[in-house]
Amino acid sequence: MTIPHDVVALDRTLFSKELNLQADALSSLARASFESLRTGNCPGREFTGWFDWPMTHGFALEQEIQTWAKSYKPNYDLVVVVGIGGSYLGAKSISDILLGPGDSVLNRSGKKIVFAGQNMSESALGDLLKLMELKSPVINVISKSGTTTEPGVAFRILKSAMERRYGKEVAAERIIATTDASKGALRKLAQESGFKTFIVPENVGGRYSVLTAVGLVPLALGGIDTKALLDGAHAAFEGFKKPELSGTAKVALEYAQCRTAAWNAGKVNEVITYPEPRMRNLVEWLKQLYGESDGKNGKGLLPVSLECTMDLHSLGQYLQEGPRSMMETFLAVENPRNSRERILVPELNHNTDELKYLENMGLDQINDAAMKATRVAHAKGGVPCLEIRTKDLSPASLGSLIAMYETSCAVGGLMLGVNPFDQPGVEAYKTSLFSLLGKPGY
Amino acid sequence: MTIPHDVVALDRTLFSKELNLQADALSSLARASFESLRTGNCPGREFTGWFDWPMTHGFALEQEIQTWAKSYKPNYDLVVVVGIGGSYLGAKSISDILLGPGDSVLNRSGKKIVFAGQNMSESALGDLLKLMELKSPVINVISKSGTTTEPGVAFRILKSAMERRYGKEVAAERIIATTDASKGALRKLAQESGFKTFIVPENVGGRYSVLTAVGLVPLALGGIDTKALLDGAHAAFEGFKKPELSGTAKVALEYAQCRTAAWNAGKVNEVITYPEPRMRNLVEWLKQLYGESDGKNGKGLLPVSLECTMDLHSLGQYLQEGPRSMMETFLAVENPRNSRERILVPELNHNTDELKYLENMGLDQINDAAMKATRVAHAKGGVPCLEIRTKDLSPASLGSLIAMYETSCAVGGLMLGVNPFDQPGVEAYKTSLFSLLGKPGY
Repeated sequence: MTIPHDVVALDRTLFSKELNLQADALSSLARASFESLRTGNCPGREFTGWFDWPMTHGFALEQEIQTWAKSYKPNYDLVVVVGIGGSYLGAKSISDILLGPGDSVLNRSGKKIVFAGQNMSESALGDLLKLMELKSPVINVISKSGTTTEPGVAFRILKSAMERRYGKEVAAERIIATTDASKGALRKLAQESGFKTFIVPENVGGRYSVLTAVGLVPLALGGIDTKALLDGAHAAFEGFKKPELSGTAKVALEYAQCRTAAWNAGKVNEVITYPEPRMRNLVEWLKQLYGESDGKNGKGLLPVSLECTMDLHSLGQYLQEGPRSMMETFLAVENPRNSRERILVPELNHNTDELKYLENMGLDQINDAAMKATRVAHAKGGVPCLEIRTKDLSPASLGSLIAMYETSCAVGGLMLGVNPFDQPGVEAYKTSLFSLLGKPGY
Repeated sequence: MTIPHDVVALDRTLFSKELNLQADALSSLARASFESLRTGNCPGREFTGWFDWPMTHGFALEQEIQTWAKSYKPNYDLVVVVGIGGSYLGAKSISDILLGPGDSVLNRSGKKIVFAGQNMSESALGDLLKLMELKSPVINVISKSGTTTEPGVAFRILKSAMERRYGKEVAAERIIATTDASKGALRKLAQESGFKTFIVPENVGGRYSVLTAVGLVPLALGGIDTKALLDGAHAAFEGFKKPELSGTAKVALEYAQCRTAAWNAGKVNEVITYPEPRMRNLVEWLKQLYGESDGKNGKGLLPVSLECTMDLHSLGQYLQEGPRSMMETFLAVENPRNSRERILVPELNHNTDELKYLENMGLDQINDAAMKATRVAHAKGGVPCLEIRTKDLSPASLGSLIAMYETSCAVGGLMLGVNPFDQPGVEAYKTSLFSLLGKPGY
């Protein structure tokens, strides 16, 4: 499938004149940062395997995974992904958009994906255990080390439940491990138990791993067109190879320049505003991507999400008249529907509710207008506003969007002077937890 | 039911010495602000009807609503609440905690509550229409005016669907309107159509309205013990009548002092960290409460939510090492379970996953330790950290918590020098939308 190179567009008209000038002045720095990334000369270069991934490994891997998934023997209707952070957010963002929440009574497809190991809530895990009893589940446990507390605890519990239900041998056929190629606790357990395994690549960090086996295995098990996802990402990465950037590739660099200009001008928050409830976890993925890449050495914009129009009736007041501590980026979608069914505002024979002017308009059209109206209102209130607009929420467009965001985030981190691929601060709470709970050696 | 006056506690030990001193120095201002609220002498005094609400109106109203709900004729298993902002967030926060998401296949109770009218997503409304077809729904439409765009559009569509299914007359029996006592579009429509109605009180703003008919009607229809909810709130409000504040009442004022001290010291964000996925919408309710009350005249902390431990693997790095722009409040729960079933970490005959030290420990215990560990780690990273701890998530404790937060938020807004009960900035995007869509007169 050939995907256009300009699936993603950037509108800077309401970003303020000064910030646009400052962003433009950063173009050489952005270009140099990008070149250091492309040529593998940047800080954290050992974790830049995600760049151009479809071409270097992705397409071959995708074919391998789909071939395996199509001949996978166990009957299942529920994929339980056990992982935390980068080990689940990418797959969750895509499956939420394309399949809907996995515990919903509404069935958009025969197979559902749910996620565990992100917390240690007894209530949440209890609900999941009940859901698994109602279904025929398989488990995809994703962990490089196999010793991270949350997924480790969840996997112990879910594996026991599977073994009680199916017996040890059949349970093992229903467990797929995505882990380090050779070392670590999960690799060892998988070998001993005979789990099917896939590899967490050495040179791709968690938050950049959605297009590797980490994301592709659960998505393929859920029946999603992972080939189209890679095609979309590939189209975007190809764009970066041209001497003169245009389309999606140009957006990546310009967006990084705008964010850097906002940071330089004293902004500390980036509000990311999106139009569809099912895009919530796509923005959660963005929050990890940006929060972990930028947030170090006292630097970085805090990514904050805003669901349009819902959250305008909670945080709208603050955005309009609170401290001017933020820039805002609207992630708009030209055609957000999954299905062809339309919902129009019905006609009434009266105008008591003052909505006659909307009759026969499609909801998506009103929703998109609301995003534009909000951007105008917030810009008037002194918030520098960008719009990133993507064509639709198809797997291919999502692939392009992911490649754009990954590259833009990496370039922006390099411009900020940080290593966008490490996360040294994540260890602090783990160490504190181990010592509080009495883990030997802490 | 008699509820203790100290269901909610505050731990300031990791808020930093300087900020604690500054917070203490604000105690006279807090006390004076509270007195102006209690005696009705504060800015926005016409919207302070929520204070002491159970005693003044709530208990009588609750009895009226429950009596009606118990004799309500139509058979139903789904309550569809149509409302936005303050018209749904309170009920949603409580129903999520006590009943779980309304579209889940897991049935914690016979009746489920779902929410519409918060956005204009065709996909989301399409899903809801499908869910309603699978169930026997009633609709509770909540709007003071009846002309707000999002719930107005959703109600047009859902009402048409109900009328096609049940016929006009039976559909009308399945629609309950909560609206202004005498005027407005929804009042007029309800009169013409014969909907059962309840009243949105004149002297309580949306974000403070959860204990009025706005919250009580859907919660009663969902089978929740609304009497206990009011008992809990009443216990907290009674605490404010003592000359010397203690327990929950004391927490309210001290928490307001701490937030104000953080703002005065240059913080712009408050991260609200919570331990249970089903508390997410309680924190969304808090985000509206604080965002709309404080965020004006260039002032106020931006409320940002963090789900523990999930979001530590996305925003944890930023919290640990990013800009020191935030304070953090941990909303802990002593005993968060709804049921008596426990989930313990199972024993294994090996320690490959390095989790042997957690064997036979309950997940809730580990989860609570993780919250404490995170507070220690973030405080070490230079984030001033508070803990608000509540006994459990029972209706009574939630009532106390709500009364505490409402009062604390109002007092804090007054200390900040704003009117905590208006929201002038919310109109800006509406006006912008009307003009973009061509509403007559805009």
